[in-house]
Amino acid sequence: MNIAVMGAGAVGCYYGGMLARAGHAVTLIGRPQHVEAIRRDGLLLDTRTFRQHVRLEASTEVNAVRGADLILFCVKSTDTEIAADEMKPHLKPQALVLTLQNGVDNAERLQARLSQVVVPTVVYVATEMAGPGHLKHHGRGELVIATTAASEGIAKTFAEAGIPTQVSDNVIGALWMKLILNCAYNALSAITQLPYGRVVPGESVEGVMRDVVQECVAVAQAGGVRLPGDAWQVVAGLVQTMPTQYSSTAQDLARGKRSEIDHLNGYVMRKGESLGVPTPVNRTLFALVKLIEARQATAA
Amino acid sequence: MNIAVMGAGAVGCYYGGMLARAGHAVTLIGRPQHVEAIRRDGLLLDTRTFRQHVRLEASTEVNAVRGADLILFCVKSTDTEIAADEMKPHLKPQALVLTLQNGVDNAERLQARLSQVVVPTVVYVATEMAGPGHLKHHGRGELVIATTAASEGIAKTFAEAGIPTQVSDNVIGALWMKLILNCAYNALSAITQLPYGRVVPGESVEGVMRDVVQECVAVAQAGGVRLPGDAWQVVAGLVQTMPTQYSSTAQDLARGKRSEIDHLNGYVMRKGESLGVPTPVNRTLFALVKLIEARQATAA
Repeated sequence: MNIAVMGAGAVGCYYGGMLARAGHAVTLIGRPQHVEAIRRDGLLLDTRTFRQHVRLEASTEVNAVRGADLILFCVKSTDTEIAADEMKPHLKPQALVLTLQNGVDNAERLQARLSQVVVPTVVYVATEMAGPGHLKHHGRGELVIATTAASEGIAKTFAEAGIPTQVSDNVIGALWMKLILNCAYNALSAITQLPYGRVVPGESVEGVMRDVVQECVAVAQAGGVRLPGDAWQVVAGLVQTMPTQYSSTAQDLARGKRSEIDHLNGYVMRKGESLGVPTPVNRTLFALVKLIEARQATAA
Repeated sequence: MNIAVMGAGAVGCYYGGMLARAGHAVTLIGRPQHVEAIRRDGLLLDTRTFRQHVRLEASTEVNAVRGADLILFCVKSTDTEIAADEMKPHLKPQALVLTLQNGVDNAERLQARLSQVVVPTVVYVATEMAGPGHLKHHGRGELVIATTAASEGIAKTFAEAGIPTQVSDNVIGALWMKLILNCAYNALSAITQLPYGRVVPGESVEGVMRDVVQECVAVAQAGGVRLPGDAWQVVAGLVQTMPTQYSSTAQDLARGKRSEIDHLNGYVMRKGESLGVPTPVNRTLFALVKLIEARQATAA
């Protein structure tokens, strides 16, 4: 299969690397520092089970999507529209686009701009770029993709490449479940610059997290979303498995980068407004992250 | 009159200095750096209308309250009990104690430990210690004191010393109004380390502040407090008069000091719990300030 990864950060490099290792023709599209290192040395896939340099194509140019049958769309939720417009003129008419992103509405936003089929996908993986061209895998790696005519075939291809992939008719519910996790942890860790294991035991924090979850569940239900499981149990369980983790939002703020908060607590807030469901705690967390971003933007 | 100021920070030095300047025998009880400077050079009263070195007594020892007819009690709300116990053995039986503090329950907490009459007082002044023994006055200076047998006499004495003082039967309502202002501004400014003029225009911030005010008003009403005026109007007006101001909580966090948040949003939260009034946004702001304090305590 001819595969392109649009936005080759830690998620895109992991899945692109696994597919290239299985013999597929993969092109990573990403930032110069990674592209240069990958062209020179290959992608270093440094996983829980093996460590290997994988040879594949890499480019900083969006037109490298040309010829791809499958696009793994891995840009930040804040960049979905821009990246869609950039790649649109170069896409094959029959190309299939999988959204491997945080947030629940990326596939919808992308589909609004592309005539190709867009398949919402849930990603369960812990990875980071440990250096230029160096992908560090901390655990998991499963995908869940929405039901389409092509989904079973893709799931089989992925499974053969070591990527456990499930086809589901409730990907939106699973994306919401991830969204709720992100809403409960990301902003608190970001605002305080603390890891989950130090956030959760804080005075009155459990009540705050319960409020966040309850607001999210109310919005999801008002929007007709079917949540697969008890959201609070999932949220309460996460801290035990990753006590030393800082949220991606915390990492973005620490690096002075724009975060995805518009697509996390900000999304729940806007969705709640449109559905008439109050979300005061999500709004508070959203407003605080935006203020800190604005302060940093001025300071920079 | 023989007057002692317990906790001679910026508020205590202003009122103590004004009374000493009018001829009263005033003793300031405070930290060594200020006490040394004041003993050497007098207190520099650097006000909006004059600049003058005022001679008065200063001590680091609590037993300097001995002999005072009037105590201006100006310690942080977090230190009320400790300071009460320290000064208790040295107080004259007939001494009168005025609480010039943030928070609404200091007089009650102090009265629970002292047999002397405690008079809740509302302070409207903007001051800071600009250096050792150097009191900088930015504006205002009025007091409102609760009705007691002695209150009219005190108000007259204070007025003659240039301190406009009103006697009121609703000091608790006025203290609540100040509490609501503090709840709406202090934590937001502290968590983001931004001045009011940059907090208020932030995305979704007005909604957050409205939620804070609405929760506070609901708790006050459930507690039988009569608020003098429209709380939201007072809150919305403050930013216009002090756009460059950082809250005292912001200053405490910036200096790595423990803040008064337990007696601001934390008080509203606890009072709400005891009255069955939900305060999710006050709780969120409280929890975040506590987490940041805890992080700083570990880092220090």
